[in-house]
Amino acid sequence: MTCRQQHERGAAPQSKIPVTILGATGVVGQRFLRRLANHPWFEVQHLAASDRSAGKAYSHACQWHLGGEPWAGFGDKPVQPCTPEAAFAPVVFSALDTGPAKEIEPLFAQAGAMVFSNASAFRMEPDVPLLIPELNAAHLRLIEAQQRRRGWPGAIITNPNCTTVMLASALAPLHRSFGLQAVLATSMQAISGAGYPGVAAMDIVGNVIPFIRNEEPKVETESNKILGSLLEHENGPGLTPAPFKVSATCTRVPVLEGHTLSVSVKLARPASLQEVRQAFEAFVPDTAGYGLPSAPARFLVLTDAEDRPQPRRDVEEDEGMRIHVGRLRSCSILDWKFVVLGHNTERGAAGASVLNAELALAQGVLR
Amino acid sequence: MTCRQQHERGAAPQSKIPVTILGATGVVGQRFLRRLANHPWFEVQHLAASDRSAGKAYSHACQWHLGGEPWAGFGDKPVQPCTPEAAFAPVVFSALDTGPAKEIEPLFAQAGAMVFSNASAFRMEPDVPLLIPELNAAHLRLIEAQQRRRGWPGAIITNPNCTTVMLASALAPLHRSFGLQAVLATSMQAISGAGYPGVAAMDIVGNVIPFIRNEEPKVETESNKILGSLLEHENGPGLTPAPFKVSATCTRVPVLEGHTLSVSVKLARPASLQEVRQAFEAFVPDTAGYGLPSAPARFLVLTDAEDRPQPRRDVEEDEGMRIHVGRLRSCSILDWKFVVLGHNTERGAAGASVLNAELALAQGVLR
Amino acid sequence: MTCRQQHERGAAPQSKIPVTILGATGVVGQRFLRRLANHPWFEVQHLAASDRSAGKAYSHACQWHLGGEPWAGFGDKPVQPCTPEAAFAPVVFSALDTGPAKEIEPLFAQAGAMVFSNASAFRMEPDVPLLIPELNAAHLRLIEAQQRRRGWPGAIITNPNCTTVMLASALAPLHRSFGLQAVLATSMQAISGAGYPGVAAMDIVGNVIPFIRNEEPKVETESNKILGSLLEHENGPGLTPAPFKVSATCTRVPVLEGHTLSVSVKLARPASLQEVRQAFEAFVPDTAGYGLPSAPARFLVLTDAEDRPQPRRDVEEDEGMRIHVGRLRSCSILDWKFVVLGHNTERGAAGASVLNAELALAQGVLR
Amino acid sequence: MTCRQQHERGAAPQSKIPVTILGATGVVGQRFLRRLANHPWFEVQHLAASDRSAGKAYSHACQWHLGGEPWAGFGDKPVQPCTPEAAFAPVVFSALDTGPAKEIEPLFAQAGAMVFSNASAFRMEPDVPLLIPELNAAHLRLIEAQQRRRGWPGAIITNPNCTTVMLASALAPLHRSFGLQAVLATSMQAISGAGYPGVAAMDIVGNVIPFIRNEEPKVETESNKILGSLLEHENGPGLTPAPFKVSATCTRVPVLEGHTLSVSVKLARPASLQEVRQAFEAFVPDTAGYGLPSAPARFLVLTDAEDRPQPRRDVEEDEGMRIHVGRLRSCSILDWKFVVLGHNTERGAAGASVLNAELALAQGVLR
Repeated sequence: MTCRQQHERGAAPQSKIPVTILGATGVVGQRFLRRLANHPWFEVQHLAASDRSAGKAYSHACQWHLGGEPWAGFGDKPVQPCTPEAAFAPVVFSALDTGPAKEIEPLFAQAGAMVFSNASAFRMEPDVPLLIPELNAAHLRLIEAQQRRRGWPGAIITNPNCTTVMLASALAPLHRSFGLQAVLATSMQAISGAGYPGVAAMDIVGNVIPFIRNEEPKVETESNKILGSLLEHENGPGLTPAPFKVSATCTRVPVLEGHTLSVSVKLARPASLQEVRQAFEAFVPDTAGYGLPSAPARFLVLTDAEDRPQPRRDVEEDEGMRIHVGRLRSCSILDWKFVVLGHNTERGAAGASVLNAELALAQGVLR
Repeated sequence: MTCRQQHERGAAPQSKIPVTILGATGVVGQRFLRRLANHPWFEVQHLAASDRSAGKAYSHACQWHLGGEPWAGFGDKPVQPCTPEAAFAPVVFSALDTGPAKEIEPLFAQAGAMVFSNASAFRMEPDVPLLIPELNAAHLRLIEAQQRRRGWPGAIITNPNCTTVMLASALAPLHRSFGLQAVLATSMQAISGAGYPGVAAMDIVGNVIPFIRNEEPKVETESNKILGSLLEHENGPGLTPAPFKVSATCTRVPVLEGHTLSVSVKLARPASLQEVRQAFEAFVPDTAGYGLPSAPARFLVLTDAEDRPQPRRDVEEDEGMRIHVGRLRSCSILDWKFVVLGHNTERGAAGASVLNAELALAQGVLR
Repeated sequence: MTCRQQHERGAAPQSKIPVTILGATGVVGQRFLRRLANHPWFEVQHLAASDRSAGKAYSHACQWHLGGEPWAGFGDKPVQPCTPEAAFAPVVFSALDTGPAKEIEPLFAQAGAMVFSNASAFRMEPDVPLLIPELNAAHLRLIEAQQRRRGWPGAIITNPNCTTVMLASALAPLHRSFGLQAVLATSMQAISGAGYPGVAAMDIVGNVIPFIRNEEPKVETESNKILGSLLEHENGPGLTPAPFKVSATCTRVPVLEGHTLSVSVKLARPASLQEVRQAFEAFVPDTAGYGLPSAPARFLVLTDAEDRPQPRRDVEEDEGMRIHVGRLRSCSILDWKFVVLGHNTERGAAGASVLNAELALAQGVLR
Repeated sequence: MTCRQQHERGAAPQSKIPVTILGATGVVGQRFLRRLANHPWFEVQHLAASDRSAGKAYSHACQWHLGGEPWAGFGDKPVQPCTPEAAFAPVVFSALDTGPAKEIEPLFAQAGAMVFSNASAFRMEPDVPLLIPELNAAHLRLIEAQQRRRGWPGAIITNPNCTTVMLASALAPLHRSFGLQAVLATSMQAISGAGYPGVAAMDIVGNVIPFIRNEEPKVETESNKILGSLLEHENGPGLTPAPFKVSATCTRVPVLEGHTLSVSVKLARPASLQEVRQAFEAFVPDTAGYGLPSAPARFLVLTDAEDRPQPRRDVEEDEGMRIHVGRLRSCSILDWKFVVLGHNTERGAAGASVLNAELALAQGVLR
């Protein structure tokens, strides 16, 4: 683990690693680009998107949705088609939709790229890491099994659904300290989570939509994999999912950025309020000491303010990479309840994938 | 019960009953006034409000917050102080805040008025009915104990907290059919629930506030009383609260009217989806056949639309008196989960009190 | 003008006239349907829409965007293609977009239908009436020239752009009383004006978009035609546009229904504040005494409330058919300034066309 | 002007100058504090507020409304009363309301402080500078007359109304290049402009309020003073207001930060579009070369994007200190029209005052 130690001291790669962004024209693609435009370890080589955009200058291929410099300064860069022939780089960030991701990401892995994907297509495959670096950095080793099984020189590494990221991050300290039996969550999700144009203003202004297609099944299964145990099998490392149950109701509210969750949990063994607070406050992320450029200064913050966290006021802290927990109190049905907040398109999407890649580099998986 | 039978056939009182509105200048007071302006059974005699407003014409005492005719046509009517001397009527509707309600409502009951109160001050007193006419019409008989115990010729009759109304209404069919063990709810509440000026725009635009002061304790206790059993004791009728537990998280969202709840329940005995659907759809409100003017055509509607109910689109149905249930499905932690919606300032406040008074009249309690 | 006199006494046609709605699945099409579902003079015979929808039941062809009964009770009615062969009726309401309108509306006129169109395609044609019945009922006679020139047994009759309706209605009293020289307007337009899905929530929540494609040219030219003079020419009646100039800036704001305009005007001859008030208050609409079912009880209301009109609070008055004027005061650059509000999808679209058809029937143009 | 030259080279004062913030608990006061917390030239010595707050720790005296570190790290600092005895510093920033400002600001000036005020109380006094440093830096010399006339060792220096700042900044290039005759503006103002709690959510969600008390008179008069000419009189320098007329309509829209204006102007002499563009693009602010810490990198940016500027997307550029102009095109009534946007609580309030103080220091007025 020399490499890890090296990066623990904050050393960067000697030269920047070229990267490709797949699905660069969408909302998440743009956030990838903005994060990578001045990244200390990575350098944007290719912007790739659907055939409709390929061949155009990036500024003609899409409207820029974010603040800061329009098109992150890449307005003149030509958009490539999403093929390894046209857009290969050793590191690939994928903001593709599930359908295209299922077809395109394997082509890049086969061509030797490490694909860091925000898509759901491969998340639940047993040999694909579903990473939140602070929680399960060791799961990165699943790519050994993946490469062996699929014969790829590269690999696919995924981050969770944007709502799962917040939930699993808040569950991890409790899971580690006490074990979890049951989790019941209601989300109030931001409109940015639906991409662009995404949610029609006529649907959401002054409204709540108590349904988000395909969302609840993801939230109800992904946390178990994320908090699962890595075991050595004959054919390489494998995962045993954590055994708790999750029940989720996902709703959309008129908020721009930030998914808020109301969560109740039943622990595997009793704990006092003091112990639960301690579990949150003393949680040490797996990434401590790695010096990952996109890691937040504080990963998980428990607040005592009676009416926080609030998406509009808190979500941008630590460039959107912080998880906020508040309103911790006992629950008369399960054991404890609290509110969790995180930035759905940073912590829950682009920032998540970039952090995964940084972890991979720090662990010597990228060369 | 001749009177009741008479009203069951829809007969109105021979002449309209004069009423007083306490706290007439606030948002709920205005809704009372609008509902009562053309009511077939009641006639507005007095508008009463705090000393700050008393003596002014109603149109000078407050800004009109609702649509329709400004000040419901009562703009020139002078506002009275909140004393029985100045503003007595045999029926009183109270939109007072808790503090003033605690002092003022008993004065009117002592003077012989039937006080229909939206305030929380007396809701949990054992001899005060906490009514949702469709659910617990028989609880009105608690006023016998109240009058005996307190020596009042009149009485105080309350409606629940605005969030409890929606919750208890959706729970009632399940409670009746299967019994309830546990209820876990997260609310997404409208800004109108905080009155006027109420929530600052700077606080709620594009935001979720995961806390509403004093709200959760009400939601966690009132349903048990509402769904409790009326028993004959020596000193008159008394209530045994329903024994299930409720755990609530209450949040504010940028919606104008309509509280939405995400609810999970554990039943006392197992039921199939078909049985649960049936419980909702076959529920017969206690008010069936009474012909109460403010009763909704349909009290409780279970929808199969995958993304309904939605506050902005559904909440005004049946003049805001309908309860909407949707997204009924099994819950992996408790037994069933669903979404409930209702109009917080009509079904949950002014309309609730008026319906209570109509029930009292139909049951012969008002003369 | 016997027919007119007959309808002045409120007499309806002996039997309801069958109508077709073109573009029935969109937001304006749905408002047409809701207005016509229980119309005393018209009866919905055909719902027509694009090939994508044709053949489906109406409830499968579109999501219902309005309140009230879903699909206005026509959920099972099959959608027809937009051809006279499949969907002819003597009266046709068109909610088509400009492109399709240009092709399809003439086919129906040629087949003998009176086409009441909300599209911009034919508005500025010299032989096509651009009607606001209260302002220029006489312009309906332009169809004589239209039928002669184009050889159609039917005709096309248009209503203005949704923003123009509010502006022209507020200008008419000033134009009639004093003449107009110049009009400078800034609009704050509702999101419903862009149809569905229309404006992306990501674009408009908490934002102002200071541009609406193709809107300003319409607002800058249509009022002159609407307030123009009908003159008899050799070949039938013709229009001389009113000679004032209009300069418009159109913006989008996060409002659901209701376009608000800030307007400054220069009159052709000086007037006192009293005279200008009088012009607004004493304005007699051309439709006075016709008893048109969709005409508002009050067409144009001038308010003295210092902070009105407001879209959310005022726009639904008179079923959205009222024009609201407020904040009338002198302007140091031009002569007078004021604020105008109207319902963009009723007064400015569906209600406008239906009112045009009612006028045509009252004037004996429909048989 | 040695001092000025010194600061032109970016030299800071040798030690930081202590400052007091009056009205520190309000929204603008908090923005003052955040801007001054790490200011290179100033150091916060006193937080002062009303008697209700004085004596409390800052974190107990107010809720923190901004992002970033709560209470800007001053949560433990005790709040002082607004008197020179308790809270004197050589530089004072005032976020007081007009009434208190009228009484309190002179006391500090009399005690020798330079008071940089965001209040309207003294703005239109002939001997009080109404500064936008980029436009009229020379007006600072008015304090010579002020000190002479009032016998104060200190002085009061004001910044304009938040809406005027945007308007005057956009007018200045036209005024300098061509002269102005007439200005007609409609504003769409953010809710933050009303302070906290300010606008009730019930009033503004999904709404436009076409009136802001006391706003239009300020916008209609302040620009003339700002763009006026400084002339030497016997008793020191005096101002001749610029002679153009301004007519304004001010409205409130559901936007959090950023006032947008739709503006039409008549120039004193004809100009081509190319010349007008050139006037905006070549405008050199008076502060060029001063190296003022709060000056934006780009003061005035003219955009060609058809639908910009937009408050939510553009207003934070250059820490809220940039003025955005867009949609420049000819006007058929006056000569030109365009849209202006700026940050109302930074460029239009706290940032404006701080920049004024920086200018005063750079010009040697502060010692």
